[in-house]
Amino acid sequence: MCILCGMSYRAAVVGASGYTGVELLRLLHGHPEIEVGTVTAESNAGANVRDLYPSLAAGYPETVYASTDPAALAGYDVVFLALPHGQSQQMAGELVDTVGHVVDLGADFRLPRPDYEHWYGEGHTAPELIGRFAFGMPELYREQIAASQHVASPGCYPTASSLALAPLLAHGFVEPTGIVVDAVSGVSGAGRGLKTTSLFAEVDENVTAYGLLTHRHTAEMEQALSHVSGEAVQVLFTPHLVPMVRGILATCYARPQVAGLTTEALLDAYREFYRGEPFVIVTDDPPATKAAAGSNSVHLSVRFDERTGTVLALGAIDNLVKGASGQAIQNANLVLGITETTGLPTIGLMP
Amino acid sequence: MCILCGMSYRAAVVGASGYTGVELLRLLHGHPEIEVGTVTAESNAGANVRDLYPSLAAGYPETVYASTDPAALAGYDVVFLALPHGQSQQMAGELVDTVGHVVDLGADFRLPRPDYEHWYGEGHTAPELIGRFAFGMPELYREQIAASQHVASPGCYPTASSLALAPLLAHGFVEPTGIVVDAVSGVSGAGRGLKTTSLFAEVDENVTAYGLLTHRHTAEMEQALSHVSGEAVQVLFTPHLVPMVRGILATCYARPQVAGLTTEALLDAYREFYRGEPFVIVTDDPPATKAAAGSNSVHLSVRFDERTGTVLALGAIDNLVKGASGQAIQNANLVLGITETTGLPTIGLMP
Amino acid sequence: MCILCGMSYRAAVVGASGYTGVELLRLLHGHPEIEVGTVTAESNAGANVRDLYPSLAAGYPETVYASTDPAALAGYDVVFLALPHGQSQQMAGELVDTVGHVVDLGADFRLPRPDYEHWYGEGHTAPELIGRFAFGMPELYREQIAASQHVASPGCYPTASSLALAPLLAHGFVEPTGIVVDAVSGVSGAGRGLKTTSLFAEVDENVTAYGLLTHRHTAEMEQALSHVSGEAVQVLFTPHLVPMVRGILATCYARPQVAGLTTEALLDAYREFYRGEPFVIVTDDPPATKAAAGSNSVHLSVRFDERTGTVLALGAIDNLVKGASGQAIQNANLVLGITETTGLPTIGLMP
Amino acid sequence: MCILCGMSYRAAVVGASGYTGVELLRLLHGHPEIEVGTVTAESNAGANVRDLYPSLAAGYPETVYASTDPAALAGYDVVFLALPHGQSQQMAGELVDTVGHVVDLGADFRLPRPDYEHWYGEGHTAPELIGRFAFGMPELYREQIAASQHVASPGCYPTASSLALAPLLAHGFVEPTGIVVDAVSGVSGAGRGLKTTSLFAEVDENVTAYGLLTHRHTAEMEQALSHVSGEAVQVLFTPHLVPMVRGILATCYARPQVAGLTTEALLDAYREFYRGEPFVIVTDDPPATKAAAGSNSVHLSVRFDERTGTVLALGAIDNLVKGASGQAIQNANLVLGITETTGLPTIGLMP
Repeated sequence: MCILCGMSYRAAVVGASGYTGVELLRLLHGHPEIEVGTVTAESNAGANVRDLYPSLAAGYPETVYASTDPAALAGYDVVFLALPHGQSQQMAGELVDTVGHVVDLGADFRLPRPDYEHWYGEGHTAPELIGRFAFGMPELYREQIAASQHVASPGCYPTASSLALAPLLAHGFVEPTGIVVDAVSGVSGAGRGLKTTSLFAEVDENVTAYGLLTHRHTAEMEQALSHVSGEAVQVLFTPHLVPMVRGILATCYARPQVAGLTTEALLDAYREFYRGEPFVIVTDDPPATKAAAGSNSVHLSVRFDERTGTVLALGAIDNLVKGASGQAIQNANLVLGITETTGLPTIGLMP
Repeated sequence: MCILCGMSYRAAVVGASGYTGVELLRLLHGHPEIEVGTVTAESNAGANVRDLYPSLAAGYPETVYASTDPAALAGYDVVFLALPHGQSQQMAGELVDTVGHVVDLGADFRLPRPDYEHWYGEGHTAPELIGRFAFGMPELYREQIAASQHVASPGCYPTASSLALAPLLAHGFVEPTGIVVDAVSGVSGAGRGLKTTSLFAEVDENVTAYGLLTHRHTAEMEQALSHVSGEAVQVLFTPHLVPMVRGILATCYARPQVAGLTTEALLDAYREFYRGEPFVIVTDDPPATKAAAGSNSVHLSVRFDERTGTVLALGAIDNLVKGASGQAIQNANLVLGITETTGLPTIGLMP
Repeated sequence: MCILCGMSYRAAVVGASGYTGVELLRLLHGHPEIEVGTVTAESNAGANVRDLYPSLAAGYPETVYASTDPAALAGYDVVFLALPHGQSQQMAGELVDTVGHVVDLGADFRLPRPDYEHWYGEGHTAPELIGRFAFGMPELYREQIAASQHVASPGCYPTASSLALAPLLAHGFVEPTGIVVDAVSGVSGAGRGLKTTSLFAEVDENVTAYGLLTHRHTAEMEQALSHVSGEAVQVLFTPHLVPMVRGILATCYARPQVAGLTTEALLDAYREFYRGEPFVIVTDDPPATKAAAGSNSVHLSVRFDERTGTVLALGAIDNLVKGASGQAIQNANLVLGITETTGLPTIGLMP
Repeated sequence: MCILCGMSYRAAVVGASGYTGVELLRLLHGHPEIEVGTVTAESNAGANVRDLYPSLAAGYPETVYASTDPAALAGYDVVFLALPHGQSQQMAGELVDTVGHVVDLGADFRLPRPDYEHWYGEGHTAPELIGRFAFGMPELYREQIAASQHVASPGCYPTASSLALAPLLAHGFVEPTGIVVDAVSGVSGAGRGLKTTSLFAEVDENVTAYGLLTHRHTAEMEQALSHVSGEAVQVLFTPHLVPMVRGILATCYARPQVAGLTTEALLDAYREFYRGEPFVIVTDDPPATKAAAGSNSVHLSVRFDERTGTVLALGAIDNLVKGASGQAIQNANLVLGITETTGLPTIGLMP
């Protein structure tokens, strides 16, 4: 509630028993101008929020998960969809004209239909709605978002790597092909679903690559970087699972297409490119995921290796905040027309 | 700053390059009515906060650690001391009459002189000041704190275990002797100092007990529990180090001294005892440290084992928040006369 | 194979796709006198061992999981059963007279029928076989094991805590009631089954108690300690889950029933009690689980607290080795009549 | 001791209180033909091995760290040097002609003098000895090692990445320049020294890159790969610290210089290249560091990405075993003329 005018926006969270849904509840509880109303879940409908997530007990002492009924959401100022991919497109049609704004955290409305169908290997069931969603990476698409009614918030890996590489492509410093994104992620990115590969005894003291050559987030990286570049950008993306809960570090490699690059000049260019961005921190030192933990900040750095002729760009975020729920709220702030930073922590939980 | 009246209190943080100091900076950045001024460190004086702690870069982009000069702190509304034990007593004399309030996070002013000297094995250099500090555990000493100018914020283990056991002793449900507190802590409790036992390669995949029979926090537990009991309480305390950063879980055992106890009745008694406490959550299920991570909440539960005739009480906190910096801010709110919960998160970072 | 005589015993491992089964395969690969033949699994029958567990690829490059058919195991010198509780009793009848020795790692034959049925809350389907299994804790039951054909290897918590407390009860140093066992375990103890509580994102940075008052391992502790004591021993047992994969630390509390105890005298008594035991290490310092990681060793220490009149005993093991598969091989060595230590590492993986 | 002939070789371990030294003690305790005699340390001289490392108590119950005196090592069959870089070159002169074999785990004798001085930024004090040490990566230099008296065992990152890339360069499948090695390591690689960046509270839940552009291990990678290629190979190497104790995963990128590559053909070429290698496992799935934990195995896989025209090679090892102490023993076996696999586990500690 706005402490001056007493007004607040009302939000619903659909899919609020998964990790990104729960993170929305955590962050929205501290948001002074958005009030959480309906909170839905599928298999957990009927359960108390506090029983599934004791961490939320103080903020949601009486809240019960409702089952998801789009009709019951009509009139909400903003509806957050935190669903497995493929489910938003089945529901969005009933929401886009009955609620103020939809902010989708899934993949369903991030890509043009052909790209979606290519990378996800399945038909899109609501292609006519894709155009009504802006791609919700505010630092690169702020005007489009503010001008749009609905937003498709991007994936975690694309956020970290696109923000790490954007200045290079915007300035034409590097070739648009031959780019490598080698990234590591905490396990929360896999959600609360039961998989052997998410078990503590399998993840702890272990690192492995996965999704080799074909990870779907590649398409979003190429889309965002082509947007800033003006040319078709091609990325080889290798994700890895590491034994931590939150955090993504993207280490990116690109080949210079101009002469005379230096690390110093690149750092200056990054600081200039992101001047005034409240969530972007450019550092001389290599960024650490923990610096961003629990916050909506992204930490970036860059290097030029004269010896091998390579540009190295690094980006660190909390995958559940800037990589999901925090960025979703940043997008909601934009479409609601309130201060973009409202309710979003910028300081990491360290240690 | 108060959004209505434009006023805010000014705070200094002494010892702000250690973990509890950094946690004060994190929390105070989100505090609407306290503004951080001077931030000091000893060996790190002259360094930028953002270089030592990139996590703080967005909140303290230009702040530089000053060296600690008590004279320079005169006039502050509140001064937080986050120092190794023994150092506050050397400095407090210069502060107690020149600043509004001192909130000490160290052990120096928590205990009467004989107890301090017995458990810490050294003389107290400012015993005349001890009486000017209230013992800062608001749920058990709220009136004393509000009536005091200065506060000695309690230790992490005493907070978790005293709040877990207090209702039992307040009601005389258990004997004041024969109490066992078996607790585990994350490694952040040991601070940022360089010790072999704090190395990742030594802590990870490892659990060990330490400080057997003689841990200094025993004295604070006995003090707080004797305070609620009215009788001299005796506790055997065994701390353990476990491979996590934050969190304390205290598992406590006591012998009933009344007949007819049941788990259900005890849970009711706990809910009644802590009714209205904004940071206390009584749960049917065993509490988990992660439910409290990053928040000022304490999660409690209790059981009666009819088979062996034992009462079991459990308490979980974040050692750096409710066990240190969060509780210190709670105490500052109390002595400043502002709403006790201001600026303090109650929702844990989960997952 | 015995390098001198060329002979070796042949073993089958039933349930070899769970964690204790896989640990049997790891250890037996290094055992010079036992050769692994049939390796079975239920849902994983038909899979290659190396695909499910790449860690085993070098030792079992061609091995395929068979489905479990007791008839096909006839003639094996030793059959290890590494099954969820309740399944061994359904199969053991077909094995006890057709194979050399059965070593069961489950709970089915550890307890007398009434105790089993009380603590497990279900009927026993092969009670007539219980008497044919010795309780496989060699340090306390060596003669019984060597004299028996079959062995029921004990649980992880009972092993750590019974060995930690045994000297106290054997000497009558402590009262047989009022004993508290407060223990922590790594998550591998929960197996590879899919449970929310075993997910990395739930376990990491988290500690919680579980099975309050009613954990089934209590019965084995009371059985083993009554065996050494000669009196009925009663234990209150509280297990906790901590963020590590392997390891159990049991911290045990008991009340003295003799005068004049000292820590020094207790340490001496422990060293004397376990003199010559190849897997028991009594230390002055508190034992650490990591010292035992991957090994069949148990590390013990003990204290007497004069202030509160309490004896404190601590024991650390690797739950998958001394707490399961290593101890099972130790038992197999005993019943096969080969050197008890054969094939069993005693040095922990540190760091 | 050889069980047949009763003979064994005698070894000394110099620098046996660091992590690689302790790992040598662990592995040599299980080595049937090498017996450990003198065990030295610098600041820890005089301490009991079992007090510094309780994990070794069962294997080294009475061993005391001697101070390091090269003269006292004369006559040993093999002397392992597990020292910080720069120290071996000061001592080796006194050993090379008085002991059977020196196996150095440090960097001092791995590189030609100019490369050493360039990458390490300091003069070499015993350049005349460099030629007496073979580069100890048996899979690529077996003949040179067997023909040499002394061995310089390679670094952890070079082992994982060179073995992952070697078949590509041996066959000329990829260009010798433009190669990127992006690797992660557990923290044990940083040793037991006290550094803020090795603290649990800093490492846990954190990933960061370090040594950008200039990590010294680059030189060893280029040396080993140039050796198999016959051409000068150039590598850009980016190491990362991840929250685990043991393990290295190297993810390597190279540009094809021949047409018609496929993933299937590359996997076949890898299997052929490493046929008969007892420690190399080529897998279809991406390798996991945990599969190698505690063992001397290296797990490899490879991919060709037709879309971007990139070859991706992955290698996983335990940095303390195949990346240090295990490979050192493998080298010792080679120069002593005993079976190369003696005493070296190949199965990983999983879970």
